[in-house]
Amino acid sequence: MGRPAHRHRDVERRELRQVAGGQEKVKEWYGVSNADEIPSPALLVYPDRVEDNIRRMIRLAGGVARLRPHMKTTKLPEVIRMQMDQGITKFKCATIAETEMVAACRAPDVLLAYQPVGPNVARLIQLARTFPQTRFSALVDDEGTICTLSSAAVRAGLTLDLFLDLDCGMHRTGVTPGPRALELYRRIVGSPGLNAAGLHAYDGHIHDTDLAVRTRACEDALAPVLALRNELVDAGLPVPALVAGGTPTFPLHARRADVECSPGTAVFWDLGYRTTLPDLDFLPAVLLLTRVISRPATNLLCLDLGHKAVASEVPHPRVELLGLPQAKAVGHSEEHLSVETDRAREFPVGSCFYAIPWHICPTVALHNEVVVVRNGRAEERWQVVGRARTISI
Amino acid sequence: MGRPAHRHRDVERRELRQVAGGQEKVKEWYGVSNADEIPSPALLVYPDRVEDNIRRMIRLAGGVARLRPHMKTTKLPEVIRMQMDQGITKFKCATIAETEMVAACRAPDVLLAYQPVGPNVARLIQLARTFPQTRFSALVDDEGTICTLSSAAVRAGLTLDLFLDLDCGMHRTGVTPGPRALELYRRIVGSPGLNAAGLHAYDGHIHDTDLAVRTRACEDALAPVLALRNELVDAGLPVPALVAGGTPTFPLHARRADVECSPGTAVFWDLGYRTTLPDLDFLPAVLLLTRVISRPATNLLCLDLGHKAVASEVPHPRVELLGLPQAKAVGHSEEHLSVETDRAREFPVGSCFYAIPWHICPTVALHNEVVVVRNGRAEERWQVVGRARTISI
Repeated sequence: MGRPAHRHRDVERRELRQVAGGQEKVKEWYGVSNADEIPSPALLVYPDRVEDNIRRMIRLAGGVARLRPHMKTTKLPEVIRMQMDQGITKFKCATIAETEMVAACRAPDVLLAYQPVGPNVARLIQLARTFPQTRFSALVDDEGTICTLSSAAVRAGLTLDLFLDLDCGMHRTGVTPGPRALELYRRIVGSPGLNAAGLHAYDGHIHDTDLAVRTRACEDALAPVLALRNELVDAGLPVPALVAGGTPTFPLHARRADVECSPGTAVFWDLGYRTTLPDLDFLPAVLLLTRVISRPATNLLCLDLGHKAVASEVPHPRVELLGLPQAKAVGHSEEHLSVETDRAREFPVGSCFYAIPWHICPTVALHNEVVVVRNGRAEERWQVVGRARTISI
Repeated sequence: MGRPAHRHRDVERRELRQVAGGQEKVKEWYGVSNADEIPSPALLVYPDRVEDNIRRMIRLAGGVARLRPHMKTTKLPEVIRMQMDQGITKFKCATIAETEMVAACRAPDVLLAYQPVGPNVARLIQLARTFPQTRFSALVDDEGTICTLSSAAVRAGLTLDLFLDLDCGMHRTGVTPGPRALELYRRIVGSPGLNAAGLHAYDGHIHDTDLAVRTRACEDALAPVLALRNELVDAGLPVPALVAGGTPTFPLHARRADVECSPGTAVFWDLGYRTTLPDLDFLPAVLLLTRVISRPATNLLCLDLGHKAVASEVPHPRVELLGLPQAKAVGHSEEHLSVETDRAREFPVGSCFYAIPWHICPTVALHNEVVVVRNGRAEERWQVVGRARTISI
C-alpha cells in the first residue's frame, strides 16, 4: 500500500463466468461466493493454487528427490499430504511441534532444522520413539549438544541423524566452514547413538532482487561449504546430504545435482517475494479476508486486519488490498488497520476486501484455522495444527 | 536492548533465600526452580503479581464500580476469574471470541469494543442467547450497522446495548462529537431492539511520557465528548455510561467520577509501558523464557525467541533480557533472535534467559498456553483461550 507493487499477471487474472440469466460477469479468481458466511479477519486457502505451486516447485527442483520443503510456512497437515500426494517425502521444520505434525502425517523423513537444547532433546527422542516409521534428523553446531544427544540416543536405544549446521554468512546459527567444523563433524561421526547425515547451510541473508547478484552471492556463500564437504569426503567421512537455502536461492541450488532444496514460502507465496523475487512465478495461494469496520473520515477506512491477524515484523505495506492497491496504511493496532484512500466513500461499513500479506509465514501462525476455498466457495476449515508449540510431545 | 531502559525497582527486587546447607543465595523474583522442564520459548505467568496488579488497578480506580478492564491483553479465563474474585464485574473485549470467553466465565457485563459487521452481527446475537446471565453491549458508529443490529435484535426477541463510538482524536474508528453523533445517538435510542448504553471514547493516541502533557492532551480530547454528553442529557436522552481510555490515560480518567476506565496492559504490564509511563507502578507479571540455541561468534548469542513468539510490530528492543540488559538485537526471524553482547562467552548453548516483552498484548496472542509460576516453581499450564478467533460461536 502506497508502495508501487510489481503487479503479477496471475493476481490480475480474471475468469469469465456465466451467471444466472445468461449475463456474463467478470469474476476475480479469489472471489468467494459465500463470503458473507465467513467471519473476518480470516485466512483463505485456495487448494488448486497450492497444488499448482507444489507442481512448480517440483518442476524447478527437477523432481522430488532433492526437495525438502520447509513446513514453517504452511503449518497444515492437509498441505503436507498434498505434497506427499505429489511424491515429496522429505520435509524441514523449525519446531518440535511442526516436526510432530509432519511425522503424524506419516512422512518418511523430517529434519528439525534447529539445534535441540533443554527439554527439546528429550522431546526429539520421544518423537523418534513414537513415530518409528519416520526418519528424524536435527541440526547441531555445538560440542555440548552433540554430547547430550549422543547420551540421550544411547539411553533410548536409538540412532539420531544429525546435520552439522554451517554459518555461510548469515551469522544466525552454525559454525564457520573450517577446522572447527571438521572437528565437530568428526565428533558426530565418532559418537555412539549418532549418525552423520551431512551438512546444513542456510543462506537467508541472500535475497537480492537482481538474479545475477543473487546468483553470485549464493555461489560465494556456498563455496566454503562445498570445500568443507570435499575435505570431509577426502578424509573418508560420510556426507550423505547437503541441505541448502530457502526460497530466494531455491532456483540456484536447484541447478546443483547434489544439494537438497528447502523452499518454504513457495507453497503459499506472498506479496514480499512476489515483489522482491520477480524471477520466481509461484501463485498467491492464500489471502486474507477483511471487512471495513469504520469510516472515521472521508478518506479513511478502518479494516478488521490488525497485527494480531497479519504479520507485522515488516514495515508497511504489510498487505496489498486487491482492487485497492493504492490504499496507504496509516495506522495498525491489534485489531485495526487504518488505510487512507480517496475512494473510501465507495466502501460502506461491512464491505469485504481480499488482501495478500507481505509475509505469509508468520501470518499463518496468527490464525487457528484457515478457510478452504474451492471453485469460488468456502467449503471447510482446516486447523493450523503447526502453530501450537506443543502438540502431544 | 541497546536502548537505555528506565530501570524499575520491582524488576530489580531480589529476595534473600535460605538454601540447603544454610548458605544464603540471592534469587531473583522470577527464577523458576524447575525451568529445565519447560520447553522454550514459553510465556510464564506469575499469579501473585497478577493479583497485585489487579489490586493496584482497583485502588487507582477508587473501587471496582468504574473499572472495565480490557481482556485483549490477558486472553485467559483464569485471569478473568482472578479479576472477578476481587470484585470486578465489567469487562471490555475486541473480538467475539474474547467476548465469549468472558461470558463463559459468568461475568455479568461485557462490552465488545468493536463495531459488529458481517457475520459478527449474528454471532453477537447468538452470544446474547447462549449466555442470558451476561449483559452484552457493543460499539456502533454507523447508521447502517444500527439498522442491521436493530433488525437482528428484534428478530431474536432481544435488546442489545449499544455504545456510540466517538473519535476523540485517534481517527481510527468512531464519529466526531457533534451534530452527526447526536443524530446517530438519537437513532440508537429510537430503534426497536436497541438500548442506548452511552458513549465510548478511546484515546489511544495519547501516551506522552510527561504526565502533565498527557493530562492536558487527555483533557483536550475529552472536552468535546463531555460537551456531547451534556447535550444528549439536555435533550432528555439517556447516557448511562461513558467508557474512556486505555492504560496510558487510566490514572487521568480514574479521577473523574463519571467515567468508566478500561486499562488492558496493566494486569500483565510490559517493558513498553514501564519505559514510557513512569508514573504507573504496575509490576511485570508475565515473562518469556528463552534459551541460547547457538553462539555463531564470540560476541553473538542466538536465542529461541523469534517473532513467532514475541510481538514484533515495534522496533527493537522487542524484549529486555533480564540480567543482560545491554544485549543488542541484531537479527530477528521467525524462530531466532540474535543478540550482540561482549558477555556471549558466559552463556553456553542451552543457557536460559528470562525476558520482559516490550508489548505484552500481541505477545500473549502468539502462545497457545502459558506456564504458571507459583513460589518459584512452574506448576501448571493455562490455555490461551482468547487467542482463537472462534471458540464455539
